[in-house]
Amino acid sequence: MDAALRTRAVAAARGDAPFDVLISGGTLVDVVTAELRPADIGLVGPLIASVHEPGARADAASLVDATGAFISPGLIDTHMHVESSMVTPAAYANAVLPRGVTTIVWDPHEFGNVSGVGGVRWAADAISGSPLRTVLLAPSSVPSAPGLELAGADFDASVIADILRWPEIGGIAEMMNMRGVIGGEARISAIVQAGLAAGKPVNGHARGLSGADLQAFVAAGVSSDHELVSGDDLMAKLRAGLSIELRGSHDHLLPDFVKAINALGHLPQTITLCTDDVFPDDLAHAGGLDDVVRRLVRNGLPVEWTLRAATLNGAVRLGRHDLGLVAPGRRADIVVFEDLVAFRARTVIVGGKAIAEAGRMIEPLRGIATETLHGTMKIAALSHNDFRIPADGAKVRIATIDRPRFTQWGEAIAEVRGGFVVPPEGTALIAVAHRHGRADSRPRVGLLSGWGTWRGAFATTVSHDSHNLTVFAGNAEDAAVAANAVIAAGGGMAVASGGKVDALLPLPLAGLVSEEPLAKVASVFAELREAVGRIVDWQPPYLVFKACFGATLACNAGPHQTDRGIADVATGTLMQSPILDVLEA
Amino acid sequence: MDAALRTRAVAAARGDAPFDVLISGGTLVDVVTAELRPADIGLVGPLIASVHEPGARADAASLVDATGAFISPGLIDTHMHVESSMVTPAAYANAVLPRGVTTIVWDPHEFGNVSGVGGVRWAADAISGSPLRTVLLAPSSVPSAPGLELAGADFDASVIADILRWPEIGGIAEMMNMRGVIGGEARISAIVQAGLAAGKPVNGHARGLSGADLQAFVAAGVSSDHELVSGDDLMAKLRAGLSIELRGSHDHLLPDFVKAINALGHLPQTITLCTDDVFPDDLAHAGGLDDVVRRLVRNGLPVEWTLRAATLNGAVRLGRHDLGLVAPGRRADIVVFEDLVAFRARTVIVGGKAIAEAGRMIEPLRGIATETLHGTMKIAALSHNDFRIPADGAKVRIATIDRPRFTQWGEAIAEVRGGFVVPPEGTALIAVAHRHGRADSRPRVGLLSGWGTWRGAFATTVSHDSHNLTVFAGNAEDAAVAANAVIAAGGGMAVASGGKVDALLPLPLAGLVSEEPLAKVASVFAELREAVGRIVDWQPPYLVFKACFGATLACNAGPHQTDRGIADVATGTLMQSPILDVLEA
Repeated sequence: MDAALRTRAVAAARGDAPFDVLISGGTLVDVVTAELRPADIGLVGPLIASVHEPGARADAASLVDATGAFISPGLIDTHMHVESSMVTPAAYANAVLPRGVTTIVWDPHEFGNVSGVGGVRWAADAISGSPLRTVLLAPSSVPSAPGLELAGADFDASVIADILRWPEIGGIAEMMNMRGVIGGEARISAIVQAGLAAGKPVNGHARGLSGADLQAFVAAGVSSDHELVSGDDLMAKLRAGLSIELRGSHDHLLPDFVKAINALGHLPQTITLCTDDVFPDDLAHAGGLDDVVRRLVRNGLPVEWTLRAATLNGAVRLGRHDLGLVAPGRRADIVVFEDLVAFRARTVIVGGKAIAEAGRMIEPLRGIATETLHGTMKIAALSHNDFRIPADGAKVRIATIDRPRFTQWGEAIAEVRGGFVVPPEGTALIAVAHRHGRADSRPRVGLLSGWGTWRGAFATTVSHDSHNLTVFAGNAEDAAVAANAVIAAGGGMAVASGGKVDALLPLPLAGLVSEEPLAKVASVFAELREAVGRIVDWQPPYLVFKACFGATLACNAGPHQTDRGIADVATGTLMQSPILDVLEA
Repeated sequence: MDAALRTRAVAAARGDAPFDVLISGGTLVDVVTAELRPADIGLVGPLIASVHEPGARADAASLVDATGAFISPGLIDTHMHVESSMVTPAAYANAVLPRGVTTIVWDPHEFGNVSGVGGVRWAADAISGSPLRTVLLAPSSVPSAPGLELAGADFDASVIADILRWPEIGGIAEMMNMRGVIGGEARISAIVQAGLAAGKPVNGHARGLSGADLQAFVAAGVSSDHELVSGDDLMAKLRAGLSIELRGSHDHLLPDFVKAINALGHLPQTITLCTDDVFPDDLAHAGGLDDVVRRLVRNGLPVEWTLRAATLNGAVRLGRHDLGLVAPGRRADIVVFEDLVAFRARTVIVGGKAIAEAGRMIEPLRGIATETLHGTMKIAALSHNDFRIPADGAKVRIATIDRPRFTQWGEAIAEVRGGFVVPPEGTALIAVAHRHGRADSRPRVGLLSGWGTWRGAFATTVSHDSHNLTVFAGNAEDAAVAANAVIAAGGGMAVASGGKVDALLPLPLAGLVSEEPLAKVASVFAELREAVGRIVDWQPPYLVFKACFGATLACNAGPHQTDRGIADVATGTLMQSPILDVLEA
């Protein structure tokens, strides 16, 4: 954005010099006025120099034909985790750039929890120079439930303050410890203060908050939320002055969101759009933020509003007055969409340069070296006895983690044989083994009730948020087989039944991400998802594959198994063993 | 905004501590959702802690009764010049704060042109600690037409860059030299670049720009405009991506602006509101930005849109996420309006503290010392011969400045007697004398045509933008009387006829501003305005009192008299004398 470039742009705009690129023949989606109007766009270097009458100019070094198509600012995803797609940032960029997503706000929370500041630094290095404009956030919740679990690192306010000094860092990522914020806990308040002191936004995670709790959460200085559960919740959060990151990952909620906004009769400028988490197969087949746009429009949100939320509103939230609008002086991040229904991107331009055509990168990006993220399975092979619950006596009363998603305490009576509990009918095992080398890695084993019947085991190192090795199993033998497959792969996911591995997705980067291309990861992930479906009968809406990844999320209400025991954040309890008492000696 | 304050706000919001102030019984104007909804507001220190159901809380150290009234964020005036109201910043604040204006964006352009960096520094000192939150801008156009006039100072890019480093400075003020921006002139481009390099907005003055010129102006990096002349112009500027400072000072344009916005069917988030220039009597009787709000609503702009433009949209433009909204965590700058028609402010709260009640400051502000601004009349008394145009021969052809507002070159034939031109019928004198001590102060005298018949003289040191001593006169004798009255007063305005002074408004601070209270200044100004009306017959819309202050604005198209001669910015001409040739020797 130097003086020479501006001078050249001004000369081209006034007609004394040709444009570098001229986009002609298209209809501009004006996200300020909500007009769809024919306009040609002249670019000079990375800048938009002129938006003018169709055909008024023809002098340009190169032409982009937008005939019959729609010209929109590049899409901005205001809250997401690259790691959730299990591919590298380069692979993620290769997937979404050709779809018209040109800016993402990435909370590298998962890398942070596994690889600490080094993981966040790796993320910062990985985005450097990427055409996918990336605002990185400082992960606020490493770990999400201090004292109840051990992640690979521990970010207190001083660590956060250090990270906030990096120029790549645009704020503090979702404050998940809502109780800590509302209760004014010292550690958590200090993290919020670090963000406010740095003059960077503190983003929120205000799941289920309403009334006085919501006011307290926002009064603390948290300024956004994506954890919306209904149209009413959306309205309450808008009224609380929060910037909304309307999330596509919970598709069933979209109709209610659209209904609430349409009832309001206008699109509040504080509504932006985000993906949050997208599984690799969904990313490959449906897309990223483009798919959120598509589904909102399909649900009846006016297309001009949807694109405004996905562009200008996002840019304003980020304080980026150079993005989000096709207007002179702004950065030329532009998508030419074939239509405003399927939102198929004909051409994607970033910083004035066409980087994708007809859904494909012109030059696919290559990632940076990944050594930093390797070697995170600091755990030896396990035996089936590691997945049993030792007990004295012949019969015990045992605490269970009841129901997926919204867990509650349950109880069961179990027999003891050979010094170990025999899991009673209707229960399954959950085991979490510390894998970060910061404590012993003996699995802490608990019992699940209401989680269905498991005819094998599923092991995963993607397990929010500490990403310890987590195993769901109907028997200890398969648990060990699945766990050892994941350990041998350097992290990832495995399904085992009948003593052998059915499916394996190696995720050697921090145990979260593969270095393979998206197509490969998507296909193996889809196989694995299917394999899990063969060993357990899903019962939507709660007993679903996705629920497995949140089963250890100890910052949420209810009991959760962690690498340290069974945690209950409401009471601060941490049970070493699920056994409550011995009923028969 | 320290940690202890946040902790206290969070505790009060969640109900574990009382509020400092509770505003109860009112209807909140929610400028995000455009709802009018009953809500009570709890404040802690300077912060809004909670916006909650009416009656939900009663625990507070003090109460503000909003029964039957409307609660709005404080109004934000995004472009104005305090000097135009001819009172000190403290007097200005005393006038607008009780009306609900809590933030202004002040371009101290007039002080800068007279007193240089010292004048801008004085402005910065004057706003320090003021409850009227003031964003100061770096004046971009000192002088407005370099080479064609001499102001009291000369701000090149290096001076601007220095000023931009002050924390009080929020950007570069209106770039008035449009041709310089569009043409890529080195001095002007460097000023724009200084703003972009500082990461602060560069504000615009895009009068009459359209088509390629407008695109070029915006491509340079200028991001706002207030010089709108019609609804179509407003639409074109919105489409160009400019932030709009919709201006109240040209009342006759408001119906067309409202029509254009209403036709669009929504309020673009890039529309903010401003006053620009308000004469002292208008300020005293009608108000500041509150009057712009009132008149827009009266013209049919929906009240929720109008208030959103005046609050949230302004805050977003300023990058102030702590202002513009009544929501937890934001600064408690709040107005309780009796109604949404007259917008009479019952209570005005700034930073959590009630500072005005029923239209009066609870503790009127006192200004800072003004020595810096005194002594700007560096000019000796003048004689009537100084206001004559010396000429050889008996008859001359002479160039005139034809028409007020949109001046053009004219011609007249004049007789010469005793070595001086005899102004012909239908002309008047205009004389500009340098008063800043940077060059000789001999008046440069020109002839006006189409400016009516003057039966006396009007002298003023308020004369855009160099504010040299400017005199409009029907005869040289009265010109000298009026000029000398202003010189003796240390600056200001005077009307003379029949050889004596009819009215005098001393403006000893930089020759622009009085230290008297607004009521006094408004009343003397009104008398003076009336006195001028007695010596010239105004012919609206162009031949009006206001036109006198722009007659020397050499950056505008057409001929303008300056302290150096008759200037024409289009050709760069500077005529020392208006005499074109001698017709009869």
